[in-house]
Amino acid sequence: MKIVIVGATGTMGKHLTSAFEKDHQIIKAASKGADIQVDITSSTSIENMYKEVGAFDALICTAGPTFVGPWKKLTDKEFRQGVEGKMMGQINLVLIGQHYINPKGSFTLISGALSHEPQKNFANASAANGAVEGFVRAAAIELENGIRINAVSPTVIEASPQYFPFFPGDIPVTMQQLEFGFRKSVLGANTGQVIKV
Amino acid sequence: MKIVIVGATGTMGKHLTSAFEKDHQIIKAASKGADIQVDITSSTSIENMYKEVGAFDALICTAGPTFVGPWKKLTDKEFRQGVEGKMMGQINLVLIGQHYINPKGSFTLISGALSHEPQKNFANASAANGAVEGFVRAAAIELENGIRINAVSPTVIEASPQYFPFFPGDIPVTMQQLEFGFRKSVLGANTGQVIKV
Repeated sequence: MKIVIVGATGTMGKHLTSAFEKDHQIIKAASKGADIQVDITSSTSIENMYKEVGAFDALICTAGPTFVGPWKKLTDKEFRQGVEGKMMGQINLVLIGQHYINPKGSFTLISGALSHEPQKNFANASAANGAVEGFVRAAAIELENGIRINAVSPTVIEASPQYFPFFPGDIPVTMQQLEFGFRKSVLGANTGQVIKV
Repeated sequence: MKIVIVGATGTMGKHLTSAFEKDHQIIKAASKGADIQVDITSSTSIENMYKEVGAFDALICTAGPTFVGPWKKLTDKEFRQGVEGKMMGQINLVLIGQHYINPKGSFTLISGALSHEPQKNFANASAANGAVEGFVRAAAIELENGIRINAVSPTVIEASPQYFPFFPGDIPVTMQQLEFGFRKSVLGANTGQVIKV
């Protein structure tokens, strides 16, 4: 299977690359330092990435910038980080990518527990995640040629201990649990699902 | 109670105005034809509305423009209708309005069943609704001075029969059911809830 991983140089992306490259061809994409450079806040950059990749079987996205910070500082301006990044960045990866992906291919986006379990400082991510999840359910009934779409939704991950204090009471997700969520989406048959790991 | 209704000239807004004005002071806001003119896609316009309204006790929003149309026509450009309208329009009503609302006041936004029960042609609304719902849960733990926030989530409403064909199998929500959802939010004590009517 030819799999594109957007966010391949990040903590999650690196783990998923090494997990999937044993059995699959991986195209690593990221804002820098990967096989292909892509800025997901730009439709043109996304289109260029897909032109360079050509036909593929699965897209995994682990890239989802959002504003993290005190509520008092949250205005429309900061909110746009998550709107352009985690939300529209991922939605455009699908709206554009559907024209390049092979029949029976799959898109797997990244959401997160914050959509339903908010934490202070993360309202932007809660909204972006909610948008991604609503979009995934809607896109699943619209995509043609057997193309599937799911989102993987972790809470804080074990490889990012710097975030633990912001997620009191959340048991960190292991990298293997995260990986298995993506395996379920990419290699399984589900569509329109938010896979909680 | 002094209640601002944004979208007061629409189908839902008119009903809620006549229902609440028996016992409360209603300030009607809409893009045109109301007491106060407001364009919720503009932060400046929202700020001006609140300056004109002054202190208030509750804000109800029933205004939520989104793109409705075939998936094949859905690109970033059309998607922005729901991003700027139903999503950021309502989020900015809260981010800005929190500086004008009285302590123990409430915000009640409009979401919709499409966040979890998608229908063809409505992917933009599914995403916008999901964002609003995620935001409501997050804002509820951030707002200070006892200020509450909820979203009311109807499926197709009985007063809009032109939409019935797009919602096969959905039993239309009566205007009274809708009204009672808003009553629960405005007059009750809940916060961070998505009230399904």
